[in-house]
Amino acid sequence: MRERAAAILGLGLIGGSVGLGLGGRLRRLGYDPDPEARRVAAETGAVDVVHERLGEWLGEASLVVLAAPPGALPELAARAAPWLAGDAVVTDVAGAKARVAEALSPLLPPGRYVPGHPMAGSERTGGRWADPGLFRGAVWFLCPPPGGGGGSASPGGSGGLPAGEGEEAFARVAALAEALGARPRRVAAALHDRWVARTSHLPYLAAAALAAVAAEEEPEGIRQAVAGGFRDSTRVVAISPEVGSGMCLANREELLAALERFRLALGALEAALREGRASELAGLLERARGARAALLQAERAEGSPAPAGGGLR
Amino acid sequence: MRERAAAILGLGLIGGSVGLGLGGRLRRLGYDPDPEARRVAAETGAVDVVHERLGEWLGEASLVVLAAPPGALPELAARAAPWLAGDAVVTDVAGAKARVAEALSPLLPPGRYVPGHPMAGSERTGGRWADPGLFRGAVWFLCPPPGGGGGSASPGGSGGLPAGEGEEAFARVAALAEALGARPRRVAAALHDRWVARTSHLPYLAAAALAAVAAEEEPEGIRQAVAGGFRDSTRVVAISPEVGSGMCLANREELLAALERFRLALGALEAALREGRASELAGLLERARGARAALLQAERAEGSPAPAGGGLR
Repeated sequence: MRERAAAILGLGLIGGSVGLGLGGRLRRLGYDPDPEARRVAAETGAVDVVHERLGEWLGEASLVVLAAPPGALPELAARAAPWLAGDAVVTDVAGAKARVAEALSPLLPPGRYVPGHPMAGSERTGGRWADPGLFRGAVWFLCPPPGGGGGSASPGGSGGLPAGEGEEAFARVAALAEALGARPRRVAAALHDRWVARTSHLPYLAAAALAAVAAEEEPEGIRQAVAGGFRDSTRVVAISPEVGSGMCLANREELLAALERFRLALGALEAALREGRASELAGLLERARGARAALLQAERAEGSPAPAGGGLR
Repeated sequence: MRERAAAILGLGLIGGSVGLGLGGRLRRLGYDPDPEARRVAAETGAVDVVHERLGEWLGEASLVVLAAPPGALPELAARAAPWLAGDAVVTDVAGAKARVAEALSPLLPPGRYVPGHPMAGSERTGGRWADPGLFRGAVWFLCPPPGGGGGSASPGGSGGLPAGEGEEAFARVAALAEALGARPRRVAAALHDRWVARTSHLPYLAAAALAAVAAEEEPEGIRQAVAGGFRDSTRVVAISPEVGSGMCLANREELLAALERFRLALGALEAALREGRASELAGLLERARGARAALLQAERAEGSPAPAGGGLR
């Protein structure tokens, strides 16, 4: 990475992990509106300097990571924009991309904002749990810069920018992801949202509903019936409800569509169960098992170490 | 345990694990209709003697464990019954109890059959994966012997048996569970089924539907979006579809009721999402998180080592 310095705006689990992961390779400037988050970042060494407010210091950074919750991003971007250096590239780490990119694009210089989403996290929130290895081996989705022509198939791009300016910003954010051990993957925002609705947001809501149903029973009894399967099936419910709620709302349309498909899939299983059609039920379960194994095997086969030079495609 | 010998009918994961766990403490006689299962049991030493068919040898056992899939249990019980010793107690390990107990009770001597369900397992099936420690620390549900008066609050029991005969059978099967390191818990069959519908069978069907929905997308793309959350949320789908289907069908009524509750819980989340009611959505997710934590904490607080003498209640 040939960057002057990185500014990390938001020093929670993700921002803190980015900071720790960059330690010793790049000067790191941090900001968080929360005094406790700033204290933790200073203690853990997630950044070299911790700032209480946005300001002129931001101009030092050539790379700016917006690591706030989705709902707080537009205000953060609007407040940061006036201080950005002319050559700075900006990325975010929100778990839904189309809405966020649409909200942030008008606030940031054209062709300099690369929407991003590292597929890594933890049930724990806060910079206290930051981990320099959090992103190692994980896919890091990056979307073509809106208005920057970087993802456009039409020559010349859009927004009247010099051709390739979006690509340059994209490559620099991809280099950040690679520096953190992640595997950058180019994806259109809409497609990203469609995928994560099915692999993250829908499982999260399903798990919340499972926990709610279990909690309807007499607790002293049902806790005896809670084994490892229940624990794993509902593990994602342990994330912060504010983060989870924001994530779901930021991907509302795709998540509603995924919920509709889920209802249909569950309905097919339920019909076979209700009618006692054993072989049909076993067949549906067999197909589900095969589908899961194929998805996970494919991911594993491609796992770390990342193929040399094969990071982007 | 003051038993002469244990007969283990069905030498898969559970039967094999019971056999290995009893090794050196009790003579173990095994049976399985499948030659491969018999070969594995002989190789792993899950039992001392492996039989090809049921017969007179069964009379040697004072403890009989029916470890076949739910669907195969009635035939197995009917074929074993003529060979049972007069003092033998019989248990099964099926994951649903009311239907199974109803089917098996008429086939076995009154007051000698104790329906059971160890809350332990694995995605893997087959005696090859048997593990003597599989049940350590796990709850092992036991139901009062049907027709044996053991669970009846009315004095004198039922079926014209001597009072306490059902209790004696119950205590002997509880001693088996304790010998394997499990924590026996007395529960009415109907209540057991209600609980496991919500903690095991519903999460299983939900996971199958999640896998099916993810598989609707282009696989090369969606596999990039599969992270740890999806893996955990759907882990239970990896069990044998035949076992899973049989388990669900054996608990059909309670599972259908649980599915109904699940649809309602999911519908509440979906409505808040659709209307963009962020604080309501966060509130529902917060409650789900708290409910899950309470269920799992309670279980953990009571975890191994089992309280001395506190195994039954």
